[in-house]
Amino acid sequence: MAIHEECGVFGIYDPMGDCARTAYYGLYALQHRGQEACGIATINDRELSFHKDLGLVGEVFDEKTLDELGGTMAVGHVRYSTTGGVRRENAQPLTLKYVKGTLAVAHNGNLVNTAQLRTAFEYRGAIFQTTTDSELIAYAIAQERLRCASAEEAVCQAVKGLRGAYSLIVMSARKLIAARDPWGFRPLCMGRRGEAVIFASESCALAAVGAEFEREIDPGEIVVVEQGEVRSIRENCAAATSHMCIFEYIYFARPDSVICGQSVHEARRNAGRALAREFPVEADVVIGVPDSGLDAAMGYAEESGIPYGVGLVKNRYIGRTFITPGQRSRETAVRLKLGALASCVAGKRVVMIDDSIVRGTTSRQIVGLLREAGAVQVHMRSSAPPFIAPCYFGTDIPDRENLIACRHTVEEIRALIGADSLGFLSLEALHRIAPDASCGFCDGCFTGSYPIQIGQEE
Amino acid sequence: MAIHEECGVFGIYDPMGDCARTAYYGLYALQHRGQEACGIATINDRELSFHKDLGLVGEVFDEKTLDELGGTMAVGHVRYSTTGGVRRENAQPLTLKYVKGTLAVAHNGNLVNTAQLRTAFEYRGAIFQTTTDSELIAYAIAQERLRCASAEEAVCQAVKGLRGAYSLIVMSARKLIAARDPWGFRPLCMGRRGEAVIFASESCALAAVGAEFEREIDPGEIVVVEQGEVRSIRENCAAATSHMCIFEYIYFARPDSVICGQSVHEARRNAGRALAREFPVEADVVIGVPDSGLDAAMGYAEESGIPYGVGLVKNRYIGRTFITPGQRSRETAVRLKLGALASCVAGKRVVMIDDSIVRGTTSRQIVGLLREAGAVQVHMRSSAPPFIAPCYFGTDIPDRENLIACRHTVEEIRALIGADSLGFLSLEALHRIAPDASCGFCDGCFTGSYPIQIGQEE
Amino acid sequence: MAIHEECGVFGIYDPMGDCARTAYYGLYALQHRGQEACGIATINDRELSFHKDLGLVGEVFDEKTLDELGGTMAVGHVRYSTTGGVRRENAQPLTLKYVKGTLAVAHNGNLVNTAQLRTAFEYRGAIFQTTTDSELIAYAIAQERLRCASAEEAVCQAVKGLRGAYSLIVMSARKLIAARDPWGFRPLCMGRRGEAVIFASESCALAAVGAEFEREIDPGEIVVVEQGEVRSIRENCAAATSHMCIFEYIYFARPDSVICGQSVHEARRNAGRALAREFPVEADVVIGVPDSGLDAAMGYAEESGIPYGVGLVKNRYIGRTFITPGQRSRETAVRLKLGALASCVAGKRVVMIDDSIVRGTTSRQIVGLLREAGAVQVHMRSSAPPFIAPCYFGTDIPDRENLIACRHTVEEIRALIGADSLGFLSLEALHRIAPDASCGFCDGCFTGSYPIQIGQEE
Amino acid sequence: MAIHEECGVFGIYDPMGDCARTAYYGLYALQHRGQEACGIATINDRELSFHKDLGLVGEVFDEKTLDELGGTMAVGHVRYSTTGGVRRENAQPLTLKYVKGTLAVAHNGNLVNTAQLRTAFEYRGAIFQTTTDSELIAYAIAQERLRCASAEEAVCQAVKGLRGAYSLIVMSARKLIAARDPWGFRPLCMGRRGEAVIFASESCALAAVGAEFEREIDPGEIVVVEQGEVRSIRENCAAATSHMCIFEYIYFARPDSVICGQSVHEARRNAGRALAREFPVEADVVIGVPDSGLDAAMGYAEESGIPYGVGLVKNRYIGRTFITPGQRSRETAVRLKLGALASCVAGKRVVMIDDSIVRGTTSRQIVGLLREAGAVQVHMRSSAPPFIAPCYFGTDIPDRENLIACRHTVEEIRALIGADSLGFLSLEALHRIAPDASCGFCDGCFTGSYPIQIGQEE
Repeated sequence: MAIHEECGVFGIYDPMGDCARTAYYGLYALQHRGQEACGIATINDRELSFHKDLGLVGEVFDEKTLDELGGTMAVGHVRYSTTGGVRRENAQPLTLKYVKGTLAVAHNGNLVNTAQLRTAFEYRGAIFQTTTDSELIAYAIAQERLRCASAEEAVCQAVKGLRGAYSLIVMSARKLIAARDPWGFRPLCMGRRGEAVIFASESCALAAVGAEFEREIDPGEIVVVEQGEVRSIRENCAAATSHMCIFEYIYFARPDSVICGQSVHEARRNAGRALAREFPVEADVVIGVPDSGLDAAMGYAEESGIPYGVGLVKNRYIGRTFITPGQRSRETAVRLKLGALASCVAGKRVVMIDDSIVRGTTSRQIVGLLREAGAVQVHMRSSAPPFIAPCYFGTDIPDRENLIACRHTVEEIRALIGADSLGFLSLEALHRIAPDASCGFCDGCFTGSYPIQIGQEE
Repeated sequence: MAIHEECGVFGIYDPMGDCARTAYYGLYALQHRGQEACGIATINDRELSFHKDLGLVGEVFDEKTLDELGGTMAVGHVRYSTTGGVRRENAQPLTLKYVKGTLAVAHNGNLVNTAQLRTAFEYRGAIFQTTTDSELIAYAIAQERLRCASAEEAVCQAVKGLRGAYSLIVMSARKLIAARDPWGFRPLCMGRRGEAVIFASESCALAAVGAEFEREIDPGEIVVVEQGEVRSIRENCAAATSHMCIFEYIYFARPDSVICGQSVHEARRNAGRALAREFPVEADVVIGVPDSGLDAAMGYAEESGIPYGVGLVKNRYIGRTFITPGQRSRETAVRLKLGALASCVAGKRVVMIDDSIVRGTTSRQIVGLLREAGAVQVHMRSSAPPFIAPCYFGTDIPDRENLIACRHTVEEIRALIGADSLGFLSLEALHRIAPDASCGFCDGCFTGSYPIQIGQEE
Repeated sequence: MAIHEECGVFGIYDPMGDCARTAYYGLYALQHRGQEACGIATINDRELSFHKDLGLVGEVFDEKTLDELGGTMAVGHVRYSTTGGVRRENAQPLTLKYVKGTLAVAHNGNLVNTAQLRTAFEYRGAIFQTTTDSELIAYAIAQERLRCASAEEAVCQAVKGLRGAYSLIVMSARKLIAARDPWGFRPLCMGRRGEAVIFASESCALAAVGAEFEREIDPGEIVVVEQGEVRSIRENCAAATSHMCIFEYIYFARPDSVICGQSVHEARRNAGRALAREFPVEADVVIGVPDSGLDAAMGYAEESGIPYGVGLVKNRYIGRTFITPGQRSRETAVRLKLGALASCVAGKRVVMIDDSIVRGTTSRQIVGLLREAGAVQVHMRSSAPPFIAPCYFGTDIPDRENLIACRHTVEEIRALIGADSLGFLSLEALHRIAPDASCGFCDGCFTGSYPIQIGQEE
Repeated sequence: MAIHEECGVFGIYDPMGDCARTAYYGLYALQHRGQEACGIATINDRELSFHKDLGLVGEVFDEKTLDELGGTMAVGHVRYSTTGGVRRENAQPLTLKYVKGTLAVAHNGNLVNTAQLRTAFEYRGAIFQTTTDSELIAYAIAQERLRCASAEEAVCQAVKGLRGAYSLIVMSARKLIAARDPWGFRPLCMGRRGEAVIFASESCALAAVGAEFEREIDPGEIVVVEQGEVRSIRENCAAATSHMCIFEYIYFARPDSVICGQSVHEARRNAGRALAREFPVEADVVIGVPDSGLDAAMGYAEESGIPYGVGLVKNRYIGRTFITPGQRSRETAVRLKLGALASCVAGKRVVMIDDSIVRGTTSRQIVGLLREAGAVQVHMRSSAPPFIAPCYFGTDIPDRENLIACRHTVEEIRALIGADSLGFLSLEALHRIAPDASCGFCDGCFTGSYPIQIGQEE
């Protein structure tokens, strides 16, 4: 409940026009990936337009703006900031003019060689107006474009210098270009709807706009759409490995998305089943913490044979404007966000599944809520292993000092949250939750070992 | 998915103060009962303050406003308009000055003798500045107060003239008064938190603020809180019958609320179990339409032995500002609101449970979505009987011409929505879904027969 | 610079429609009479619509709202609150439903028997939702309407019970009714534009909308417009006297308005001429404090033969959102609002004219500003006599303890503000500044003697 | 009434802190130079902060924002866009990170070699995110900084490549740098307040914040403030000529400003006196069109001996949100903006002075308004010569096809606006209106001959 994905991206080429509106719907489907800022840039007759601001998709765009944006191509972005700060200037897509015309750049991920790249550019006279990686990438493309014959070639050369996670959509006056880093950290897929070609962070956005999923963009691949024709540049695929963020399956992605062939919902269910095998317990009911713990709870129930129940109901109206109660208030945050069902838990031994434990605070409050509602035992199971290391590739997992598992044993954590027993999914089991996935995984936040070596400075 | 409750009410007396903040949290828990307008009125040292506006609780109130409102008593209201229109003027609580000082009035329900009452007051020189029943009730109290020795007696006499549904909270400079109509149409309960006394439309609001549920307010009962002392006036209880809106259990109330002793979640699960008995079918998976169809789907699965699955995922960000797609758009409204899980339904015979069918449009689109996702059969079950008549008591069930069941047989509806089979919960079963409830029910929208005779004019 | 008029009113009947837009322009011309809230109510096919809110006319209305309001009749209001408080609820016109249909009421002025009237209505069961006199007047009309054959007769009877200032516009589904109190405190005039009939607080609003001034509404008169036909009810004129607020000429009204036959600009110029005769001084330049001191300064220059100069320039952008500097800041409020012209005052003996002196603070700062800019002498002249008493009839002249002239002699005031000499227009001269005016005057704020006896309670 | 200045700049170093607030007050005083967007950047402990947005100073900033900005240095900007378009992105100061840290850049003026500069930078790999000259200037500085030993030296080298108008304030973490182009097109002055050093487009902003005017920045000069020490770099002054925009005196600047030693108010008065000598006429009253025609009208009256009168009153509330009336409406725009005083003009031969005539539309409407009010003759005098050429240096004088004087003789213009006679100030007289000015002038918009040769592309 406390970790955020940084971004979601969406791109569309549609000769029928109205691409801003389709992007709007696509971003609605990706809103869970970033709720802080959003934007859409479009091309109409080779002219670039854009609109972006802080706020949710439904707050930033209105009918008039979408009509004005129109577009036979569009790039959209939803953003949650970590390193860049909550500044309006950092909203994406980044739009710019360079030697060959206009560009719009939307980026999901996080680069690890940012400082070196910035310094290098600054030593050539560059100025930086934002703190986003997108601006760095734009400079890289602009520099390469001086040498390269086409925008896509410039992108291909430019990304060679980037280390880290990037699922990227670049739009010029005539081309829509999607690119994914050779490690494949963040998802990016492609779909079709009639003559339209669509790129999106998750397949749920394709479904939302009535498009059919075609395939994932491969790690290192660059896909170019020009006048409806689609070409793939695989020059950077050679050295590519595959390290999809495994926490996408556990928490970030929408359960109705399919990533690299693996249903997210099923992956969570698998995690629950594995938990049941690894940490069985005698109990009367299995419940999940909404929303992301529900699927794993079903899996646990199925595997264990203990009935699945609805023990917690989420208040759907708690949003960004919510005023959190003070420290000593009897209205605790968790009580306002979750309602316990006594009819489900009273007098029962309860297995409670959540997606992960970060600081432990929320888990402790939920355990308390369940006991107040009459639960006689509360056995907590986490469908992710303990977090022990930061993420450098686009999520905001906190520093080690804020990760409960960096400073406490499992038994200590159990005591701190007040549960009767506690189990974390093992790393071995974690790697088996997505059997249909055609990719490898990054589990750096659970192991401290990353596909890319992290320098001192990061 | 298309019917709205009109209102939710919340009242608190707390000598510790800060009642506006507690009311704010209470209204958050009741937000599902009305998303159009909201307001809070408070008493500080016998002085009335208030703030109200169009918008969600989180939009209308900020920290500063809550601090200014303070309060050792507060009355709060969330509103969805049907008859009164979306006017800022109609936001509640209604606050006023009358012969004995100030009053704040918050009302959930709908009166059926409005026109007669208005005319009668107008013939005594009254002016009406809103179109709400609350203003009528305020006049009734003001008139009675001229004859009565106390505010509560005035309330007691005033409500004798009201016919229809009212769960009412009235606040004077010194007293908090809760009243419920003798038919008991709408819920209203009472709780305690230390010295604080709290009234709320649903028990989930008591839980949210850390209060303990004490009891329901009885049909016809008036409860007065003065300086922490609680008295009950049962003068109007004599002729009271009990006709709680049964659709509160099916759809309106929050599943973690307990109404008249009956868990809402369990009632929905019971409805699902009954549906499985009444309309069994050979199938591979049972799914619910989120959110209100999920509980019934679990019940169906349990009773039938068919596995429960997650076939549909709801987009949590669709709000009031959402721009709906045009008629011919490939991005249909349902596609944007719900995502289908192919991994759950592909190649399967699916039982799909929703809370009700109003116009049939949404059901048809959901059936389509499931078939697109690969469902080989879709068997729809509605956990409510067919709507065949309007509601006069505080919900916005549409006119007969907009109710599909008024113009079509069940078989015709099945064909229209494209399901392989269709079953509506029977009236008999409906009356058995809430076995723990200590009340009788109003099922007027399913039968056309109401606890109060409806005149020509309504 | 510190006294506010409470309100301005505007009414129009125009069979060509679009009355909301004309009212919008009329209110723009009356904005100086009230900047806190505004509103417009219209009639289309006997249906009442309205829009009102806190804010300036330009903030509250947009094109869409004006189009929706339309109207073959409209009533508009701008408000500055004194007694009623800054509440959105108090914005006018008040709109209501009563025994004979709908009414909109807009009021400029202040009643002095408010408390008695409120109590009397409350003892008949009335409830008050605002603290405005308009609501009282509406009750009075509603009560009389039960006995009277027409709306205008009800207005005629209702106003008999009102004591104080009221320039009133009432609109029913079919009639536009203008009324003025028998003392004639506040201005109200009438004009025509083709078939349209227009009422406005000041003639500048008629000019703004291209209408021709026809005449003043007489004290006590009621004018009814129905289907374009205009009738006058003079029943309350019999006992009428004439006591136009003389401070309208000095300060409130716009200089291009003509009130009761007297140009406001000329009245101010006359005041300046009289000041030159009453308080001559040897000096090099005469300057005015913008905006309302400029006209009197010209008059002083003309009469004295001392050249007129521009010594102070006003910042046109200081509005309601301006953040005033702290006490010890070197950016004083007056320095931000006014710029001194050294080229005009340096090395000169300056006569500085302002409309009045309330607390003396601003005058002291202006004298300082002029000295800083190099003035060797500053002789202040006030085109109003000293304020020594409050106003009960619609302006916010402060309490006696805040009026410098209640606690200090002229010589003391001179010393306090740091001027070399100081002169206030005499009462005798005051009464001669409007020689073209066909009315008598109220000078209560300068004399403490009022046309209506003020009871203990006020 | 139709020509806009592009910008105003303000810079402050004050060891006492709170520079954002002082900049806020300074920008209020410069608001007339740009009403579309504004911004303030500050330095606190070498850290850059900023806030900027579309809107007036009073709309964009609130107390909290000013407190957060704080600052021991600040740069502020008000903007009216011409070439750059109304985009939030174009609001200034531009803030950026470059090879040596952070910079904030605020610019008033317009460059004429923009296209060449952009292309040159793009060919080195630059990306442009705005369409402002400030971004170009920032690149120029960033490039030079690679070679130069200090920020000021980089500024000094960078501006060598700029052709056109720039009054510039640049702020680094430690230095405040003001620079003015060698032609001296736009004003820029310097003042002191205790230890504080302040730069501003006009002296009125110094006065507003209680600072004392010290001197103008010379054409080509660069002034550096570091830790309170002030140094001047005069390297670019060698080739400097002096071509202050003469229309600053006629219209743009505030009358209480002194530019290059010349009071703006007196310059306007001089223009009026010259008009009286060049275009005398027998008349009864001289009036000015508020606000910028008033000073010239006084001068005309003084020189001619014809009495000065107030014939037109301006509505002070017409702002950006004003909804202009349609074409055939009887409420013309001019009628809403200006009220005519019949008491001043009725039956009179009127001399009406305005600052200039652009398209002629407004003049025609004002002549009509005066005739309606009873003027028997209207003699118009323009205190500027006819506009016959565009401005390339920072004002939005329209294209030739929209300048009435490009297509009509004076006699034709007279007939078109319906005046009895018409006179434009001669070029010779124009050059004598500012006798105290220590500078030369640019009169390009009146002559088509500019201090800088304008290439084909502009």
